[in-house]
Amino acid sequence: MKKLILVSNDDSIEAHGVHELVKSLQTLGDVFCICPEQPQSGMSMALTVNNPLRVKRLEDYHGAQMYKVNGTPVDCIKIAVDNLLPRKPDIVVTGINHGSNAAINVVYSGTMGAAFEGCAYGVPSIGFSLTSHREDADFSPCYPVVEKIVRKVLEKGLPQGVCLNVNMPANVKEFKGIRVTRGCKGRWDDHYEEYLDPARRPFYWLAGTFVNEEPDNEDTDEWCLSNGFVSIVPVKLDPTYPRPSDFNWLSEED
Amino acid sequence: MKKLILVSNDDSIEAHGVHELVKSLQTLGDVFCICPEQPQSGMSMALTVNNPLRVKRLEDYHGAQMYKVNGTPVDCIKIAVDNLLPRKPDIVVTGINHGSNAAINVVYSGTMGAAFEGCAYGVPSIGFSLTSHREDADFSPCYPVVEKIVRKVLEKGLPQGVCLNVNMPANVKEFKGIRVTRGCKGRWDDHYEEYLDPARRPFYWLAGTFVNEEPDNEDTDEWCLSNGFVSIVPVKLDPTYPRPSDFNWLSEED
Repeated sequence: MKKLILVSNDDSIEAHGVHELVKSLQTLGDVFCICPEQPQSGMSMALTVNNPLRVKRLEDYHGAQMYKVNGTPVDCIKIAVDNLLPRKPDIVVTGINHGSNAAINVVYSGTMGAAFEGCAYGVPSIGFSLTSHREDADFSPCYPVVEKIVRKVLEKGLPQGVCLNVNMPANVKEFKGIRVTRGCKGRWDDHYEEYLDPARRPFYWLAGTFVNEEPDNEDTDEWCLSNGFVSIVPVKLDPTYPRPSDFNWLSEED
Repeated sequence: MKKLILVSNDDSIEAHGVHELVKSLQTLGDVFCICPEQPQSGMSMALTVNNPLRVKRLEDYHGAQMYKVNGTPVDCIKIAVDNLLPRKPDIVVTGINHGSNAAINVVYSGTMGAAFEGCAYGVPSIGFSLTSHREDADFSPCYPVVEKIVRKVLEKGLPQGVCLNVNMPANVKEFKGIRVTRGCKGRWDDHYEEYLDPARRPFYWLAGTFVNEEPDNEDTDEWCLSNGFVSIVPVKLDPTYPRPSDFNWLSEED
């Protein structure tokens, strides 16, 4: 039976990156692409509970069925698996995100939110990102990498509760290789710029830069990306700390 | 120096639970309460990047400064720490959520999103939830538990990158104790109910029930809650799988 591939993203159905992703998957199975109708960057695993959703089917693209949903990336995965697909997909592939989802960005990313949601359904899931926000970024070096990783995961599967956060460096003619890494320690040094609207009422807009707290460690995603490698970070859906008993000083019983 | 306590939630500034939380913290330090102006349940770590934020100061409540923001729980923490507070807070406390954030709910919860964001700033952070969605739920048994846990964490701190997901069972006169547990394995068995609007166009609304996949395991949050105990699950912000090298079959280098 042909593989059933569910594709989504957070940059919306109009983004260049998801079209490139659909094209690079077309030889691997039947592709269903269900994306938010509006950009949903930074939406993490946000889920629509208080509003209705609408789904619209669009024209097929390179053999893939294309849909847009007035919701979040997680909504797209849920409504696809629950209502739209003929059966549970064999794999969920999200992206290709315009911009890095390395390090701490993984927790805010809507593209990774969709991959985590695939993981919650017990489906092997991968999020792909290219470290450029340019709409005209060159995705062509990504094709063979996406195809290779998706093919391997379709063959071997992934453990329950673990999905992959794949980042690819932009402006690199040829990647130096593919490395399995860990999320780099770092933080956003951010602030809100303050403006006044025409009625002299203040409003605020988020700005900031990422601070790498371990720039010399070669086993991090940031190091790999800075050095021309594709980075794969395996990530867990369940955030439970591995040794809860370390916190037994908080328990209390008569 | 008095402790500086930052409070937020996802049920909005109007929710009963956050007012109860502010009251139970008032003897522990100076409380700043910054909440979304609209309900933000299920918003996870969603972050507003494409729109401006507005902040409005409201009347003080039991000695606490009160603010509302037209954004997500994560936005509230960010703008509080970056722009509103006199200094970095000593602790971030979120909730009390109306409804359980045990098991898989932790990843969708906006209340836990705000706690994770506090954690990203390196501040000890705790999210509290009561397992009842009723607006008139009885929060009075929560007071001593909240005070005790917050006091202990103010004293001992938490390791970098780890925060606490505290759930309290509703409709219990007296809790049996406080236990440190782990997130229960389980999933939402969900579906979208289909409706037709007056113009005969379909729309969809999420419905579902939680399926506990290990109901007999006494070390889970779900078991504790079903048996009258308060559950504390320590949770990690960084989702990196602990042994990335297990996935070296995905790496490739010349």
